[in-house]
Parts: sequence; C-alpha cells; structure tokens
Amino acid sequence: MTPRVSIIMGSTSDLPIMEKAAKIFDEFGIPFEMHALSAHRTPVEVEHFAKNAQSRGIEVIVAAAGMAAHLPGVIASMTTLPVIGVPINSTLNGVDALLAIVQMPPGIPVATVGINASMNAAILATQFLAVKDTSLQVKLADYKDSLKKKIVQVNDELATIKFKHKTN
Amino acid sequence: MTPRVSIIMGSTSDLPIMEKAAKIFDEFGIPFEMHALSAHRTPVEVEHFAKNAQSRGIEVIVAAAGMAAHLPGVIASMTTLPVIGVPINSTLNGVDALLAIVQMPPGIPVATVGINASMNAAILATQFLAVKDTSLQVKLADYKDSLKKKIVQVNDELATIKFKHKTN
Amino acid sequence: MTPRVSIIMGSTSDLPIMEKAAKIFDEFGIPFEMHALSAHRTPVEVEHFAKNAQSRGIEVIVAAAGMAAHLPGVIASMTTLPVIGVPINSTLNGVDALLAIVQMPPGIPVATVGINASMNAAILATQFLAVKDTSLQVKLADYKDSLKKKIVQVNDELATIKFKHKTN
Amino acid sequence: MTPRVSIIMGSTSDLPIMEKAAKIFDEFGIPFEMHALSAHRTPVEVEHFAKNAQSRGIEVIVAAAGMAAHLPGVIASMTTLPVIGVPINSTLNGVDALLAIVQMPPGIPVATVGINASMNAAILATQFLAVKDTSLQVKLADYKDSLKKKIVQVNDELATIKFKHKTN
Amino acid sequence: MTPRVSIIMGSTSDLPIMEKAAKIFDEFGIPFEMHALSAHRTPVEVEHFAKNAQSRGIEVIVAAAGMAAHLPGVIASMTTLPVIGVPINSTLNGVDALLAIVQMPPGIPVATVGINASMNAAILATQFLAVKDTSLQVKLADYKDSLKKKIVQVNDELATIKFKHKTN
Amino acid sequence: MTPRVSIIMGSTSDLPIMEKAAKIFDEFGIPFEMHALSAHRTPVEVEHFAKNAQSRGIEVIVAAAGMAAHLPGVIASMTTLPVIGVPINSTLNGVDALLAIVQMPPGIPVATVGINASMNAAILATQFLAVKDTSLQVKLADYKDSLKKKIVQVNDELATIKFKHKTN
Amino acid sequence: MTPRVSIIMGSTSDLPIMEKAAKIFDEFGIPFEMHALSAHRTPVEVEHFAKNAQSRGIEVIVAAAGMAAHLPGVIASMTTLPVIGVPINSTLNGVDALLAIVQMPPGIPVATVGINASMNAAILATQFLAVKDTSLQVKLADYKDSLKKKIVQVNDELATIKFKHKTN
Amino acid sequence: MTPRVSIIMGSTSDLPIMEKAAKIFDEFGIPFEMHALSAHRTPVEVEHFAKNAQSRGIEVIVAAAGMAAHLPGVIASMTTLPVIGVPINSTLNGVDALLAIVQMPPGIPVATVGINASMNAAILATQFLAVKDTSLQVKLADYKDSLKKKIVQVNDELATIKFKHKTN
Repeated sequence: MTPRVSIIMGSTSDLPIMEKAAKIFDEFGIPFEMHALSAHRTPVEVEHFAKNAQSRGIEVIVAAAGMAAHLPGVIASMTTLPVIGVPINSTLNGVDALLAIVQMPPGIPVATVGINASMNAAILATQFLAVKDTSLQVKLADYKDSLKKKIVQVNDELATIKFKHKTN
Repeated sequence: MTPRVSIIMGSTSDLPIMEKAAKIFDEFGIPFEMHALSAHRTPVEVEHFAKNAQSRGIEVIVAAAGMAAHLPGVIASMTTLPVIGVPINSTLNGVDALLAIVQMPPGIPVATVGINASMNAAILATQFLAVKDTSLQVKLADYKDSLKKKIVQVNDELATIKFKHKTN
Repeated sequence: MTPRVSIIMGSTSDLPIMEKAAKIFDEFGIPFEMHALSAHRTPVEVEHFAKNAQSRGIEVIVAAAGMAAHLPGVIASMTTLPVIGVPINSTLNGVDALLAIVQMPPGIPVATVGINASMNAAILATQFLAVKDTSLQVKLADYKDSLKKKIVQVNDELATIKFKHKTN
Repeated sequence: MTPRVSIIMGSTSDLPIMEKAAKIFDEFGIPFEMHALSAHRTPVEVEHFAKNAQSRGIEVIVAAAGMAAHLPGVIASMTTLPVIGVPINSTLNGVDALLAIVQMPPGIPVATVGINASMNAAILATQFLAVKDTSLQVKLADYKDSLKKKIVQVNDELATIKFKHKTN
Repeated sequence: MTPRVSIIMGSTSDLPIMEKAAKIFDEFGIPFEMHALSAHRTPVEVEHFAKNAQSRGIEVIVAAAGMAAHLPGVIASMTTLPVIGVPINSTLNGVDALLAIVQMPPGIPVATVGINASMNAAILATQFLAVKDTSLQVKLADYKDSLKKKIVQVNDELATIKFKHKTN
Repeated sequence: MTPRVSIIMGSTSDLPIMEKAAKIFDEFGIPFEMHALSAHRTPVEVEHFAKNAQSRGIEVIVAAAGMAAHLPGVIASMTTLPVIGVPINSTLNGVDALLAIVQMPPGIPVATVGINASMNAAILATQFLAVKDTSLQVKLADYKDSLKKKIVQVNDELATIKFKHKTN
Repeated sequence: MTPRVSIIMGSTSDLPIMEKAAKIFDEFGIPFEMHALSAHRTPVEVEHFAKNAQSRGIEVIVAAAGMAAHLPGVIASMTTLPVIGVPINSTLNGVDALLAIVQMPPGIPVATVGINASMNAAILATQFLAVKDTSLQVKLADYKDSLKKKIVQVNDELATIKFKHKTN
Repeated sequence: MTPRVSIIMGSTSDLPIMEKAAKIFDEFGIPFEMHALSAHRTPVEVEHFAKNAQSRGIEVIVAAAGMAAHLPGVIASMTTLPVIGVPINSTLNGVDALLAIVQMPPGIPVATVGINASMNAAILATQFLAVKDTSLQVKLADYKDSLKKKIVQVNDELATIKFKHKTN
C-alpha cells in the first residue's frame, strides 16, 4: 500500500523510541514508511525527501531528532505538509531538542510533542488523517476508550490495595 | 460560512497575540471562530465546546494558554480533533506554559508551537487543512514564497549597508 | 469509616510514591480512599469525582501527577475543597510537573508540595484537618517530636564518628 | 474581630503584591492580620509569632518571601498550623523563591502557590476555612461563578471582534 | 576586494547586533560580505551560498540566528569551511538559540560564541585568519593591548573614586 | 590606612553595584581598596595583584564578575587568602556568572554570594575580619539590630495599613 | 582540643559527603566538631547552637543542606560568625539547594560553595583561619602544591598515552 | 613531527572523552600533543603553555573543562591562537561548564562546541587547518561522505525493519 505517513529519524539509536510510533500506525491500519535521514549529514537526501513527499502520497511527516534537533524544522522548510517533531532525550534531558524543534521562526511551524513522545506523535498524525475519515475517527474513539479502561482497571486494583490499610 | 477552525483563548489579554492567528486565517480565506474558554473557570463550557466541535464542522482547534496551561490538553482529552497548543509568555518567559502543553501523557497529544507563536499555530492548522485541498496548497506555496521574498529584500538592503564599511 | 481524604493518582506507577501518603494517614488514624483517575483519559470520571467529593464527606484531596500534570488543577476547578498537588518526577526531574501544578491561574489555587513529596502532602492534609481537631493537633505535635528525636539520635551517632578523626 | 488568618511578609516591597490577598479576605469577610517578619532579620519575632499563632485563634498562615525564601518554611517548622507560601519574583523570575519554598524536607510541608500568586494564596486559605463553614462554601461557589462570568463576557466580546475579519 | 569572511543573518532585526562584527572586520582591515539568508525561508539560497562560499574565496563564515537557530548548523552541514554561530537573544534569553547552535551532532561542529556576542565572533574569525598571517597577529596583539588599557584606565578612575570614602 | 580588604571588578559598569560593598566597609570603618582587573584582559595584573595581596596586608578579597565569570576563581587560584565572589547579572539573569563562580573544582574554593549581592559580600568579609576582633563583633551585632528595627518599623506601618480593610 | 570549626548537617545521608570536609580538617590539624541539626525539625537546637557557637570558641561554621536548604541561612541569621553553605544534590541536581543557600537577603550572607563541594567548604574555612596564622598559611601553600603535583603527574602520563597514536 | 594542535585537559577523568579528539586527529594525519593543565591548580604552567604555543608551531588549541570551566577562557586570554572549548558533563549535566566557556566577555572569544563533544572539537580544529590546505579539504569532504554513508546504511536497515509491520 502507498504509505500515508513518513517516520524519519537520524540514527538507529532512535529506533527503539520510534518503533512505538510504528506500532500505533500498525494498530490503526495506517500505511507508513520509515527512513533514516540527517539534516546535517545527508542534506541532499533530506531535500529530495521533503520536496517529493507530497507527490508520493505522504500526508503527514513524523521526524525525530536529538540535541540541536534541526531535522523536523529543515523538512518543514521544504514542504507544505504538516511535520510532527519528536524531541529525543540525550545529555540535557531533551531540553535542547525540545527548544530546537518547538521554537521555529514565524511561517515555518513544527507540531511538537513531548520529549521521546513518539507514540503521541503517531496519535497526532492519526488525528490529522481522521479529520475526513470516519472509520479512523471510530478507531480513535475506541483507542481513547481503551486508555480509559486501563485507568478504570487500576482504580479497581487500588480499591483492593486500600483494604490493606488499617484505619479504613 | 461554517467555521473550519476554532481559536480558543483564556482571556482578552491573549487577544493581541491570538489576533495574529486570525489574520493568517483571513489571508488564507479559512472560516474560523474565536472563543474565550478557561479550563479552570468554565470547565463545563470547555467540555461542551470540545465534545461538539467536530459535529459543528470544526476540523482543527487552536488553543492558547499561559502559566499552568491546561486548556489545550483538556480540550484534547475530550475530542479526537487535532489540537494545536500555543504557550503564552508570562512571569517565567513561557517555559511553564510550554512544558504544561507539550509534555502530555501517552495517548493525548497536543501539537505544540513556540512561545507566543500564534501565527505558526495558524500556518500549521492551514497545513492540516491543505492536505486534501489543492487550492490551499497553492496558497501555502505562495505564502512560503512571500517569506522568501522578504529575506531577499533584506539581503539587497544589506548589500547597500555593506558599502558603508571602509574596507570593502 | 467515611473517608475524609481522597488520594488520586494517574497510574499504578505512581503507587509506590503515593503509598507513603497512605501510611501517614494510617499513622494519624485518618480514614482515606485511593482512586486512579486521569485528567486526560477519564475526564468524565474526574468530573464526577470532583463534583461529589464534598457531599461524600471528603474534606481534602491529594492529587499526584507527572509531566504536563493537569490532574490537581482540573480537580481544583470543579470543587471548592482544597486540593494538594504532588508533582511526580519523570524525564525532566519533575520540573514540568511542578510548574504545571503550581502556576495555576488566579482564582483556582492548588496547594503544591515538593517533587515526589507525597508524605508532605499527607502531613499538610492532616494540618488542615487538625485546625479544629485537638486530638489531631496533639498527634501532629507528637509527630514533629519524633522528627526531632531522629535528628537528635543522628547527632549522638555523629559524636561517635567524630572520635575516629585524629585531631579531636 | 479576632483574626483567623495571618499574612506575613518580609518587607514593604512585598505589600503591593500581598494587598491582593488582603482584598480577597475582605471580599469573603474573613478577619485577618498583616505582619512584617523576616526569617533572617527577626528570627526571635518569627519564633514568637509562629508559636503563639494557634492559641491566638489563627487558623491559616500566608507567608510571602523572595530569593532564598525561608520564611514560610521556618514558620512551618514552629507550628502545626497549615502555612501557605507565596514565592516573590526578583532577579531569577521567582524560580529561586519557588524552589526554596516548595522543596521542603519530609515532615514540614508548605502549601505553595504560584510566583507572586498572593490572590491564590488567599483563595486557598479560604478553601481551608470553608471545609466546615457552609456560608464560606456558598461564597466560594459565588466567587467561582464570577470567574466564569468574566470569561463568558470575554467570549461575547470576541464574537464582536470576530466580525471584523473579512472571511467570516 | 574579495571578501574573506561572510556574515550571515536571518533578518534586519539582527543587523544592530551583527554590525558590531562588521566594525571589528573594518578595524582589522579584513574584507567581508553580509547576507540575509534563512535556513527555513530560503533553503535553496542557503544551499547555494554554503556550497559556493569556499570557491568564492570565503575562509570563515559567521552566522547569527535566534530561537530554534538552525542557520549556522545547516550551513555547516553543506561546507567544510569553519562556521562561527552567534545565538541571538529573544523570548528565552537566548538559551534556545544557544542550545540549538552549540549542541550539534557528531561530525558537524559549529564554533559557538556567547549570546549576542557578534563582536567575539568577529575576533574569533580574525584569530583563524591570523594563524598564518603575521600582520594580523600583530593587530590582534595590539587589540588585546587596547582591551588591557581600558581596564587600566578604569583602575585609575577607581583610585579617584575610592578617595570619596571616608575611612580610607 | 593600610587596606584590609580589596574590592576587584572587571569594568566601571560594575561600579554602581560594587559601591554598595564600599559603603558597608565605610560604615564598619574597615580600610579597603578598589581595583579594576580582568581575568581575560589583564591576566598579568591579576597575577601580580593576587600574588602580592597577602604581603600588602590584604586579609579578604571581594571579586565581582559577570557572564563567564572567571575573575574570582582565577584570583583564588593564585593566593591562599579567602576570595568572596559576586556574580553580576547580565543577559542570563546572572545564572551564568553564578555557576561560573560557585562550581569551582576541588581545592580552590570561592565564597559565593547571591547575584549582584555586593552588600552581602562586604558583610561576609566583615564577618571574617570580626572573628578575632571584638569591636567589629559589636558593630556586626548593632548592624543586625538595625536590620531588625527596619522590619519592626514596617510591621508598625502594616498595622496602620490593615485598618483600611473593612472587615477588621 | 576546643573545636574551631563546626560541621553541621541535616541527616546521616549527608555524612558520606561531609566526611570529606572532616578529612581536610584532619589533614590541616584543625580541631572540629560535627553535629546533626535541622532548621525545620530541631529549630530550638539550631538556635541554641547558633547563639552559643562563638562563645564556645567556634570561628567558622560549615553547614550542609539539600532541597529547600534553609539550615545555613537560618544559622547565619543567629550568629555573626561566618557560615559556609554546602548545597547537597538531590532530585533537582542540587539547583534547589544552591539557590536556597546563595540567594540570601541583604544583610545575612552565606559563603556558598559548589554542589556537594564539602571539601572546598573545608578549604575555605581553613583559608579564613589562616589569615592570621602563618603555620596554616604554609600548610595551605603545601596543599596547593600537592594539587599542582597531581596535575603534573597526569601530564606525564598523557605524554606516554600520546605515543600510542600513530601520527605523532 | 611538530604538533599543530594541542589538546589540553584538567584531569585523567577527562581522558576517555578527549581521546575521541585524538582519534580524529590520527585519522586526518594531523600531528598533535596532549597536556594536563589546570587553570586553578597549575596557573603558572597554563601561562607558560599559552604564551609559547604559537612560537612552538601550535595553530589551534582544544581545551576541555568541567564545572566552573575556566581553562579554555584563561588560555584564550594569553594567546591570539584560536581556542576551542569542550564543556565536560558533571553534576549539572554540563550546563555549568557550557555557560562558563561560551559566555566569554567581549574581546576574548572561545569557540565552544557541545557538551562532551570532543570529536566535534577535533573536526572544527581540522576545518581551521584546512582553510589553506587542499589535502585536508579533500579528507574533510571524504569524512562528510562517510557520515552520509552511515545514514544511508541505517536507511537500508530500516527498510528491512519496516517489513515486519503488518499493514505495510
């Protein structure tokens, strides 16, 4: 199937984090592709990717980067597709990557999610795709329900734990 | 016209910043609405808004908030529409609002832009709407061109300024 | 016994931290309940909890949350009961949670304690309940005495350690 | 009338901020007193105040301090009354005061509110006093209603502003 | 004269800061050029500039940028010339720009100077050019001497000021 | 009189801050000298000063510096006299200077005071000198008393202000 | 021997850090004492200690504290002896303790050293005691020499390591 | 061969980090030397090194330091050679070292690279040396190519990984 989403990362060390995004797309049945590209080491490939993504059918781009995290912003500067940026945690707890992704200049936004929050990046991408897609909306509602059910289950477990305390 | 985007803010003090978003939607011919809602002062109205936005035809929500900025996340928890969060600068340079918006828990993302970056929030919303809208894509490409032209003009001015320096 | 205090947390991962609060309430003989609720995943349950806590006899709420920690503030927006917020440490050393809890807008305060400081949250809740309860006041005075005795004991141990040093 | 709340500050420079707390207590009809005390310059007076507050009928203490803000914690160490701490902004945007107030050691909590958030400190104090006071509960509910009405009014104003935009 | 140094900035708002660099090059008699280029708004022009700078005779590049400051790093990725990055102060005191410039990934360094430190960027560029240029070395030594003389003069003024104090 | 304390600063821009230290020494009748020295611009003079201070009768050195504030640490490395460091506020609220002064490596301490806290630096220097000087001890006790009296006076003023509030 | 220095800490968990200070005093032959005192848990004992230290012959106090580290400042407010504060690292990397110690209000300084820098606190205390004590001055000079010798030895080791590299 | 670059560090604990710089110089065939020097413990040796480096043939200096990292700045103040500073990570994630190196006063720049980024320091030094050295330029271009190839290889691996996902 033609991928609708592109997951871009700078190195294999980001893969354990970004596979969580891949799993979400699997769950939602959204075809995606994964590429390793570096704003600084493969600028030509980044440009080629960014300029051709839309014509290849890509609708949203998820780009992860750490430290002086330029990749999401550089891609955003070369396409009008929405770009979701995932700051990756390294020496400075990910604060450097967060600021380098979110503080983009006027005119070239990156939709930034939390530090290492690849799963949220995938949910956000799914929400974009769902705007005109009723079946995805239903799946998202189901997903939200499953989140709720986990909390409800924890709540039930807590009721049991509480009985261990003597004054109650 | 039925609004496609909702701009939400917590107080009139946010209006000078959020009107920049309104101007962008004007420029792109995207019908929008503006509401004042507070996650903490009007929680019932927030819930009513969030749960009905999609059925009213809203496709993207732009929500601004400062300090312990809960509004974007609270809206995101009650809709499957994408929510773009704008952290507003107050005593702590906007760092509090940025973290309170971007660091959302797994499953409930907010697409965060820079501090006070209402204009970028509007561009990002437009990029979402443009994915399946060729005319918006053309307008976005024109907009990017206009950004480029401003820089080119500055460049020409710099050439003149340079001549003031004696060694050149 | 009817619980006077409610301990609210977002997931079982917060339980090891929040059980320290439960132990304090056990020590002081204050009946309490524990619930898992999420501002973003179970907003309806949060609203139901917050709006009915006072009529169920709850006098103080202790709410823990990490990252973009909205739970204490969201509960505070839906009740006039005092809410004590416990920021939970995650990627950013808990600074994100601290700011997202303490920097509440005018009119909707959260009584914030230190990062992971569930024990202090319970002591603070006890101090509120003690204002009109002489027997709790006596217990708090005893508790403060026990804190002092630990330090005095450490002091005695240090006197011994000091003798190891040759010049004294 | 015997004061139920004590507002403590370290210097007259804090008065413009702390008078907002006084105004809230006026609005709610809660008798209060105001004192200038310094943890470092008048330690004896602080001790005398802290140890006698409860027997004088004080039920909650609101203490403001800036920089290495020790006053709320030092008072808390000498009384079992709940102490609400207000970090005051100075050179470091109030981050120093916030951390010096909120990060109290186990056993001696301070209920911390936002930077310069004297108004919220007063609301929080009122919430404590309201737990067993139905008339204060009604006033707090009215107060929350008034917060809501301000937002609703802003919302109406925004509807007017929106009409200035051409595409809507 | 063929410019040996290129000063690059993103907008005319950076000009008052970057003119200090220009003045230093004037003082040292080093021919330079100034360009406005944006990593995000004129990526093609940036690429063209970066790839041709060396063949045009440029030996060092000074690039200033604020916020998510990608310009110096993006240029560095497309040339083997040394790039000196100047973080420009905006909402976050320049911390965002500093981290986005200095925290470059392995293999693509940017020689970062202090926030708004355009003058130091020019001195650093001059030091690079001086390595094999004895006349520039002499000028740099003279410049360092002039810095020393200013301090010595201040010292003499302080001797006078001191006499105003009564106990000396 | 032979100066017992040396006040060192890097430029006349620090003079308005450091004159507060001078005034304290005047009040306490402690002879002092003031010098402008720069760790980076006059390293030879700094070395000469540091190595001869003790033999000239100097007992404590107060050194102020901003940004990458090396002056106090560099002086401390060249003398066994105690050095008190005053971080001066500039672009980063003085956090850069604070860390560059206080985080000295093992073996070479600097006694650091708060940001811009020249007055406290002078009090601290006086406390060192007072250890074996009973008359200075008396003066310090008087000084502490005067601090207390200011607070007591503020307290009296607050009593008046309080009467303006209607419910008291 | 009568102790000249007092090492104060809040708990035995600080002992592994503060024993490094004790070792330095051993090395320099300076008699010292160690006490566990808590600004918040044993305020009476702190006051008793601080008010009697000078008359017992103590000349300098070294006080360690973590989190909202009030101990050094509270002691400093009750004595005219110089107090050296050691910020102890806990959840926030020691930044909370550093700010809570160094940012003291005008009139009550604490001589702050680096985070966990107990050794430097002891060296600083020794430097104070050495001002009028020639034998301690000689020992400090010897100590500085030993620091130098360690570096020189490392330098020699590096010369060996370098030979492993092929191009040299 | 006469070394063209000097690598300076403060202790053997920095060696594992700085050896990465040594490896880069080996790869590029650039003769270098390594020294242990401390701004605070061996100030005389630092001065001797800095003042004689240029006449010994050194063209660039790479200096690493942690905490209150004065070494690069102190060397820069005593030579007109370009100095590259490497902030070393310790208790504060290297933020203290970064600020203490990059925020140099006007006139005395240090070319700062990322935290622990010794490899980038070596690449930057090589870029300086390459300005007038065509063979080094070729090697740098080859090096950049090798960086690109690693990314391309990762990309190929990702293509394989992607096939594990069911919807693609």
